[in-house]
Amino acid sequence: IGLKAAQKKAHVNQAVKKDTDKVVDTVDMEDIGEKKVFCRCWRSSKFPYCDGTHNKHNAATGDNVGPLIVKGQAAQ
Amino acid sequence: IGLKAAQKKAHVNQAVKKDTDKVVDTVDMEDIGEKKVFCRCWRSSKFPYCDGTHNKHNAATGDNVGPLIVKGQAAQ
Ligand code: FES
Ligand code: FES
Repeated sequence: IGLKAAQKKAHVNQAVKKDTDKVVDTVDMEDIGEKKVFCRCWRSSKFPYCDGTHNKHNAATGDNVGPLIVKGQAAQ
Repeated sequence: IGLKAAQKKAHVNQAVKKDTDKVVDTVDMEDIGEKKVFCRCWRSSKFPYCDGTHNKHNAATGDNVGPLIVKGQAAQ
């Protein structure tokens, strides 16, 4: 299997709750506070929150992923 | 290169804004409305929103990724 084919088959998520069929997280707006930063690289040790590990993943692989930032009312 | 090694090197993001160094999206709570569903599989054609493509990716690869749901006040 070549690198390109392997990448297409690759799991986005290597380690988060691999015993569950689908990892869906729900957050209420009232818990956002000033702002919350959510992981989209699946490498954070604080998943579903971002802990900055996306930078390490990007550097190691050449990828370009980053978090979703939700800003609360206090930050407007 | 073996499958496992290739997966470790694999990009999480195959197609979203590959010309930018790091894809970070910021959303204001006031734009959430009742709720918004955000993509974490990087396969959505409506990125940063989820369009359900995570199910196709999971079925094709055996992965278990899913979206982040942010619920607004109207949905409390
Ligand atoms: S640690 Fe995953 S996006 Fe930041
Ligand atoms: S389409 Fe990516 S998480 Fe739903």
